[in-house]
Amino acid sequence: MTRDEAHALDAADPLRGFRERFVLPEGVIYLDGNSLGVLPKAAATRQREVVEQEWGRSLIRSWNEHGWIEAPARIGAKIAPLIGARPGEVIVADSVSVNIFKLLTAAAAPSPERRVILSEAGNFHTDLHVASGAAELMGMELRVVERGELEAAIGPDTNLLLLTHVHYKAGFRFDMAALTARAGEAGARVVWDLSHSAGAVPLQLNRDGAELAVGCGYKYLNGGPGAPAFLYVAKHLQEQLIPALRGWMGHSAPFAFHDHYEPAPGVSRFLVGTPPMLSLLALESGIETFDGVDMDAVWTKSIALFDLFARLAEERCPALECISPREPDRRGSHISFRHPHAFELCQALIADGVIGDFRSPDVIRFGLTPLYLGFEDVLDAVERMAAILDTGSWREPRFAVRGKVT
Amino acid sequence: MTRDEAHALDAADPLRGFRERFVLPEGVIYLDGNSLGVLPKAAATRQREVVEQEWGRSLIRSWNEHGWIEAPARIGAKIAPLIGARPGEVIVADSVSVNIFKLLTAAAAPSPERRVILSEAGNFHTDLHVASGAAELMGMELRVVERGELEAAIGPDTNLLLLTHVHYKAGFRFDMAALTARAGEAGARVVWDLSHSAGAVPLQLNRDGAELAVGCGYKYLNGGPGAPAFLYVAKHLQEQLIPALRGWMGHSAPFAFHDHYEPAPGVSRFLVGTPPMLSLLALESGIETFDGVDMDAVWTKSIALFDLFARLAEERCPALECISPREPDRRGSHISFRHPHAFELCQALIADGVIGDFRSPDVIRFGLTPLYLGFEDVLDAVERMAAILDTGSWREPRFAVRGKVT
Repeated sequence: MTRDEAHALDAADPLRGFRERFVLPEGVIYLDGNSLGVLPKAAATRQREVVEQEWGRSLIRSWNEHGWIEAPARIGAKIAPLIGARPGEVIVADSVSVNIFKLLTAAAAPSPERRVILSEAGNFHTDLHVASGAAELMGMELRVVERGELEAAIGPDTNLLLLTHVHYKAGFRFDMAALTARAGEAGARVVWDLSHSAGAVPLQLNRDGAELAVGCGYKYLNGGPGAPAFLYVAKHLQEQLIPALRGWMGHSAPFAFHDHYEPAPGVSRFLVGTPPMLSLLALESGIETFDGVDMDAVWTKSIALFDLFARLAEERCPALECISPREPDRRGSHISFRHPHAFELCQALIADGVIGDFRSPDVIRFGLTPLYLGFEDVLDAVERMAAILDTGSWREPRFAVRGKVT
Repeated sequence: MTRDEAHALDAADPLRGFRERFVLPEGVIYLDGNSLGVLPKAAATRQREVVEQEWGRSLIRSWNEHGWIEAPARIGAKIAPLIGARPGEVIVADSVSVNIFKLLTAAAAPSPERRVILSEAGNFHTDLHVASGAAELMGMELRVVERGELEAAIGPDTNLLLLTHVHYKAGFRFDMAALTARAGEAGARVVWDLSHSAGAVPLQLNRDGAELAVGCGYKYLNGGPGAPAFLYVAKHLQEQLIPALRGWMGHSAPFAFHDHYEPAPGVSRFLVGTPPMLSLLALESGIETFDGVDMDAVWTKSIALFDLFARLAEERCPALECISPREPDRRGSHISFRHPHAFELCQALIADGVIGDFRSPDVIRFGLTPLYLGFEDVLDAVERMAAILDTGSWREPRFAVRGKVT
């Protein structure tokens, strides 16, 4: 792959124009859009308007006049087509963690025989913490098994499965349709965590029979730091589920001030408190970066970016072991490598303008975001990484300084 | 009270200068700062910086470089002195509702004899919804009694009390020290909801023996629409409480990615998911509007504003019945009136630039925010209300249109 070839691929890329929707800092190759998506230009403009006009001038009237009150459902409806859901099946609220808690505690079927919430060892840890807390409250048990043993572990004692569709570390992807069906046969339900999937890999929740899911607003959806999360409940299940974590925004009549809780119709019952409006409306601008985008084209480009990254790294960075699956339908939209000094390598890359993520203890991870990442970016990133590895510049003491979040 | 007298009171007001810290829209008398505080000028500037520089340019690096990761504890430490707490006792996270849920489920003492969470009939309804859901999960019971019967209802079956310090409707205030002590004698704990207190009425949580509390960021604290809430746990209790609603941000080592949950030391264990950073940092600007403010002076001015409002309304609006307590130590910083057509009156006032709140079924409520409200504002507001009542202009059909949030 020469630079001219990479350049030609970018020139021929049908998604190339969407790059213009984003603020891409000079001198940076950003391979961390799966951790925090970049700023959409429209979000910057919109946030000024939200703060200075809507909060500043219209004040409390904005709940009506500027559609604040409808925002959780309105933004949910914009996410729905990106994940293969219908508009009334998605709302935006709270964090991924809190939404997992809501779904687990609402969907657990009361049954003394089905005491187990099943999840994967090494799942993103917040999922396991949430599940352990929910299980304790409900007198249930969180059982964590290795990925390869999950299917066999589904049994008559399984109440719920909590599975992350694309794994945060190496990017392994579950077969949503197969596992949902397998759980269903055993009388269990699956809560899918789509944090590393939504906005990147193909998702067809309705088609694949998914009933319950949550996902992240601040990764591929470009919603801004700590953007609220989304929550999905399939239509047929919505009226059966009564949230245990419940609040006024999910009441059927929030402004009637009734002592008695009566859940709102549909998925909106999973709203709880007043949403953080600045962050919520920034998320709306993030979702809108997908307006007019063909999600199949996104995935096709992700595959091409991955393949290029993997091939170049294999050629030029032999010290790295790629731990992500090569088959597209078995993985997400990031590529991860093992290296005994992944931490230092990551720090050296950041100092050189290539931003990826270190994941403890020995993984370096790069997010591939087709809306704003080009083929030449990948070439540049791998070349800089090869130079760091060849020269051993990652050994500089400054790159070993820990104690900060990474 | 003549206009000159009101003007003189404003001129002599030691807090008058703080008004300059806020954006106050032309032509509006804003009496709803207890529902959504006005925009601090510093928040507008800061939000541009957060969006355009920190998110836009520094991207993921901002978690370290711009102190995002410390924000929940840092902002909590700024709230602490406003409520009579120590810095390590307060964090900012999630919503009031979610924080109530966290505290109820963490603090419920496991005991088959103490099955009751006790609260007030007509409490702000989200509190009751949260408590009912938490009680169901824990196999407990939410018992709701009238305010006057609360003390007598505390008994050997009481596990927790959930009390709102200042009531959202008429503004009745509980005696925090007395009720906390009374609950303690009975072996129960109190979760205090400070939503209508923090930033307005005198609070001395440590002195008054309060052990558990939550409060709202977007009312008197001026944190912006739906700003994250705060959560307080007294020092001596922190290591005893294990959150049931738990997540990675409350883990002792969030970036070690351990499957096993180990709570962070101190109150930070009550963090759950990634915080909505735009809203969170706007809240910080809101809290900073209290920098250098003498909280005793705030309360002294609140009393004076209330007394003026009550006296003028009594003189000029005989159709209104004041339902807020007159004695300062029995109330909050808002004043409420009953009128059979409170809804229409509220709408007519808003059309005339005086923004208050309708509270179903027949209450109109005005927030008194000493940092940016003046005596002449109160005079103007009551005069406009008197004119609307005298002329009956509230009867115009347009003011009766419902179906929107109010």
